[in-house]
Amino acid sequence: MSTFKVHFLPADISIEVEEGATIANAAQRAEVFINNLCGGEGVCGKCRVQVAQGRAPADEHAKGFFSQDEIMKGYVLACQTEVHDDLEIVIPPESRMEDSKIMTGGADDETGTSEYNPIVKKIYLELPPPTSEDNVPDIERISRELRKQFGWHTFDIPLDCLQNLSDKLRQNDWKVTVTIARKGDNYRILKIDALDTSAANYGAAIDVGTTTIVVQLVDLTTGALLGSEGCHNQQATYGEDVISRVIFACGKGGLDPVQKAVIKNINQLIKKLCQEKDIPMDEITSLVAAGNTTMSHFLLGLSPCSIRLDPYVPTADEFPQVRAQEIGIQINPRGVLETIPCVASYVGGDIVSGVMSCGIPEHEEVRGLIDIGTNGEIAIGNKDWLVCCSASAGPAFEGGGTRCGMRAIKGAIEKVKISEGQLSYQTIGNAKPRGICGSGLIDCIYELVKNGIIDPGGKFQRDREDDRLKIEDNIAEYTIAYADESETGAAIVITESDIDNLIKSKGAVFAAIKSLTDYIGLGFDMIETFYVAGGFGSYLDIGKSIAIGLLPDIPKERLQFIGNSSLTGARKCLLSEAAMEMCINVSRSMTNIELSTYQPFTDEYIAALFLPHTNGKLFPSVSY
Amino acid sequence: MSTFKVHFLPADISIEVEEGATIANAAQRAEVFINNLCGGEGVCGKCRVQVAQGRAPADEHAKGFFSQDEIMKGYVLACQTEVHDDLEIVIPPESRMEDSKIMTGGADDETGTSEYNPIVKKIYLELPPPTSEDNVPDIERISRELRKQFGWHTFDIPLDCLQNLSDKLRQNDWKVTVTIARKGDNYRILKIDALDTSAANYGAAIDVGTTTIVVQLVDLTTGALLGSEGCHNQQATYGEDVISRVIFACGKGGLDPVQKAVIKNINQLIKKLCQEKDIPMDEITSLVAAGNTTMSHFLLGLSPCSIRLDPYVPTADEFPQVRAQEIGIQINPRGVLETIPCVASYVGGDIVSGVMSCGIPEHEEVRGLIDIGTNGEIAIGNKDWLVCCSASAGPAFEGGGTRCGMRAIKGAIEKVKISEGQLSYQTIGNAKPRGICGSGLIDCIYELVKNGIIDPGGKFQRDREDDRLKIEDNIAEYTIAYADESETGAAIVITESDIDNLIKSKGAVFAAIKSLTDYIGLGFDMIETFYVAGGFGSYLDIGKSIAIGLLPDIPKERLQFIGNSSLTGARKCLLSEAAMEMCINVSRSMTNIELSTYQPFTDEYIAALFLPHTNGKLFPSVSY
Repeated sequence: MSTFKVHFLPADISIEVEEGATIANAAQRAEVFINNLCGGEGVCGKCRVQVAQGRAPADEHAKGFFSQDEIMKGYVLACQTEVHDDLEIVIPPESRMEDSKIMTGGADDETGTSEYNPIVKKIYLELPPPTSEDNVPDIERISRELRKQFGWHTFDIPLDCLQNLSDKLRQNDWKVTVTIARKGDNYRILKIDALDTSAANYGAAIDVGTTTIVVQLVDLTTGALLGSEGCHNQQATYGEDVISRVIFACGKGGLDPVQKAVIKNINQLIKKLCQEKDIPMDEITSLVAAGNTTMSHFLLGLSPCSIRLDPYVPTADEFPQVRAQEIGIQINPRGVLETIPCVASYVGGDIVSGVMSCGIPEHEEVRGLIDIGTNGEIAIGNKDWLVCCSASAGPAFEGGGTRCGMRAIKGAIEKVKISEGQLSYQTIGNAKPRGICGSGLIDCIYELVKNGIIDPGGKFQRDREDDRLKIEDNIAEYTIAYADESETGAAIVITESDIDNLIKSKGAVFAAIKSLTDYIGLGFDMIETFYVAGGFGSYLDIGKSIAIGLLPDIPKERLQFIGNSSLTGARKCLLSEAAMEMCINVSRSMTNIELSTYQPFTDEYIAALFLPHTNGKLFPSVSY
Repeated sequence: MSTFKVHFLPADISIEVEEGATIANAAQRAEVFINNLCGGEGVCGKCRVQVAQGRAPADEHAKGFFSQDEIMKGYVLACQTEVHDDLEIVIPPESRMEDSKIMTGGADDETGTSEYNPIVKKIYLELPPPTSEDNVPDIERISRELRKQFGWHTFDIPLDCLQNLSDKLRQNDWKVTVTIARKGDNYRILKIDALDTSAANYGAAIDVGTTTIVVQLVDLTTGALLGSEGCHNQQATYGEDVISRVIFACGKGGLDPVQKAVIKNINQLIKKLCQEKDIPMDEITSLVAAGNTTMSHFLLGLSPCSIRLDPYVPTADEFPQVRAQEIGIQINPRGVLETIPCVASYVGGDIVSGVMSCGIPEHEEVRGLIDIGTNGEIAIGNKDWLVCCSASAGPAFEGGGTRCGMRAIKGAIEKVKISEGQLSYQTIGNAKPRGICGSGLIDCIYELVKNGIIDPGGKFQRDREDDRLKIEDNIAEYTIAYADESETGAAIVITESDIDNLIKSKGAVFAAIKSLTDYIGLGFDMIETFYVAGGFGSYLDIGKSIAIGLLPDIPKERLQFIGNSSLTGARKCLLSEAAMEMCINVSRSMTNIELSTYQPFTDEYIAALFLPHTNGKLFPSVSY
């Protein structure tokens, strides 16, 4: 079979592929990222590329996605176009993912300076040498000292810690550093090093998101956050959303490549952080990862197939502490990975971690977490009880399902304001706009309804005179950025159908909040603080979120935007044995209210499909 | 560098070696066994071989060990003779080790039929499939059933048991077999198999002796002993006794080959047993090994160096449960190895196992164990307390340190009787005699003193007329088997110096028994039963052992010969969680009385250097 060379621009990477492979396959093998929402089915149109040199077969699907002009310029869908010639492929900005502007922060200083007791500790011991009166075995000399100093009683000691121990002690004047991990009710000795290495002990918190992977490097001796790095989850190669990936992993593709993709991301991020901070990867002794139930299964190489099939059973909801190298993560070979436990198939470790991040299970007062993603996830509780629920919000707030939606990365419009008829916007990184991210869309809707451009039902006032408003074939759209302002050369618009999707999304989130508070019999006023988390980048306008009916109408100071709560929770667990242990209790005690079978939810949902709500009394402070 | 071919007979095995390698090296690489007491120093003279073809350089050492006739016939020491030509080497019977007659038995039926609860169990579960009302995670469905059926609460579950679990359950109608091991206070799931495999669960007990390795194969579902196999410990290649091996391992040789040697033995024995019984090695899920402290260290690859140096500190006295494959033992890859804990550097797991085998820690009555080997080891106690001590007995009872001594293997004279001036003997396997083993030597001494051939001080009556008694240069020896009767063509004799060694050995053992009982303030009559263990093969004459002053003079029915108590104890632990757990208590609670610093021991030892004893009142039943 013949092979052809495919050269990707602007990455300037070439790869040889067999005849008949798709351009998407070639990009995957070359590790060049091309957007892909539908998992290669040819239906999302996100994998637009331009064939700059070489002949590509005509793409039937192209007609639905490209203008005649684009087709003439060689635009095709990467997933549908086979390679039968040497090709030069230009990947346009809208089909690229750029990692530079992934938001990696959580509430950064919340755990950094507080007291901590990391799950993996390095303890330097100067042992008394044995004498005839005191000739206990070498390992007992170590255990005895740990008992004496810390009161720890039982130790799990792997064989490899005993091998060479004798020489290590005798050649180093009985000075050693013991690396020890909390594991369940016991302590496990991970390794024993010669002399004092206790000053170098690092850990990493990992948010294993469907869309992005974020890693934070932490100095475990001081608790300091040293740095954060994020990248797009390379699993997107196998499907943009979780379900496409499950279909891939449970079909011919198999689980292995999907697991390897996320492991590779994590390794790259750790490597990058270590290089930046000049820290040997070998000095990382512990990792805490948080992800939804499916992502946690992918991470650990557990089958995700039954999670998505009735009756929605995962392999596990509590995960063993493993040596990170067992799943291919390159830190110290004895270093361990803890995965935050999950509650159920649809309530993952990311929520448990989020609940930990805002201290819900540690306080008397009732607090709530609202995590807005493809699923809107709500948790409410205090130190005695916890309930949660999850509602499918659709991808609108994450940049999917709308014409010009995009994730909160460089070039995304994150703020919009219409004042005295003038529209202004702000993009992430102050770059030329490429699309609108979740926070920008919230601003848009608020500004449109406030300025009377749409009605509270989300319909454009068609008789309005406005240059930005365009109605063709009864399809209305509103221009946020004109073609000449944008990076892609196409206008960035919001359509009536986009607004409809956004109203459904915000309706689902609000209905979930309302159903859960009603279920437990608490009014909004009885909840001390609602913490709002989600992939909004660094910005979310709380007031506008209330005004469109996404968040409950309570005083703004009781709504706190915390960014990536899953990551913050993971970092907290890395630095606190007690927090890590508490996760198990949280995951076991959290009661999941299944909204799909909870009748009032449907009514709440329908009532919420209005701006801000059909029942105005629920939003007394809002008036347009 | 040139290589030469060395062909060994009667094994008929050839090997190419580089010029300058010794014949012993060649044999080692060809895996042909040649005796070796001194570890290759050229001083023990046990590695006699005959160069049948090819030229070998003159061997300086040979003069001290061979007759002129033997030198003419080409006899050399294998460890001192370099290969500079293609050679054919005949290994004479006295330099071979034959495994066929290694005694593998313990008190065979003691544990076989009693109640048992093996440390590794296979449990077949038929699980209810999940429903919307009962959608706990897969692994929780299994844990829940185990909790329900057995009340076990916490499980340690390795990641590899979770991988593929989802498919395994769904493809097999929710029928699985869980293999589970007791580990400390928890249970650890080792593996989860599809369908019902619970009928096939096997274990092996291993006695890791300095001289011999013995393995017993046990059916864990019935408790039945399926077979025993033994072989010489190939570590002898690196030194006959423990100290030479430690010197080798802690010197240029390194620990690795010494560990590998014993692992290889164990693998071969397991393989042989599995072939004989037609059992796949993969169905062996658990091993329990017992050995002295140094042998246990060798087995697990732990440094033995400090054990033999003041203040005699081992790396560990309690050993982790390991996956057998971690140290290279080929059973099921998830199968585990437990190593019986030790008390101190000189009181090993073999003694703890022996104590378990005779039920000392389970009974109210005080019982004793006398294990006679290179060290005489004594343990006394009951369910509330345990003391032990160890005295260097020398290698006499194991066949070392006497002119014609040998281990209890085929061709060893194991019984001797002199009646009406006629000497008769019996050999192991009824083969032509090759030497005298421990039980034969005990008989010899008894018969010699009883028939007035030696006096109670161990000196020959030199004026006696006896064809078998030969005195040359004032050195007296007594012929047990004439040259023409023996396999080697040389007479088998016992010398005055041999008798002296044996008296010292028996004196040390008896002094240890006496010192220990005095120390705890108990007379011999207050001990219900003394169990006598040791490498005597299947035979030990208790009456004669008393009569020479080796064993205390109590009614014979209170002295019970139990053979290999270490092996029996290991098998008991394999079949009983409670016994395995009790070992830790035994090892921790056993008080070791250090005889070398216990003044009365020296007096007892000197008093015991007489047949039966200088204090005749201690042996009222004995009269010659």
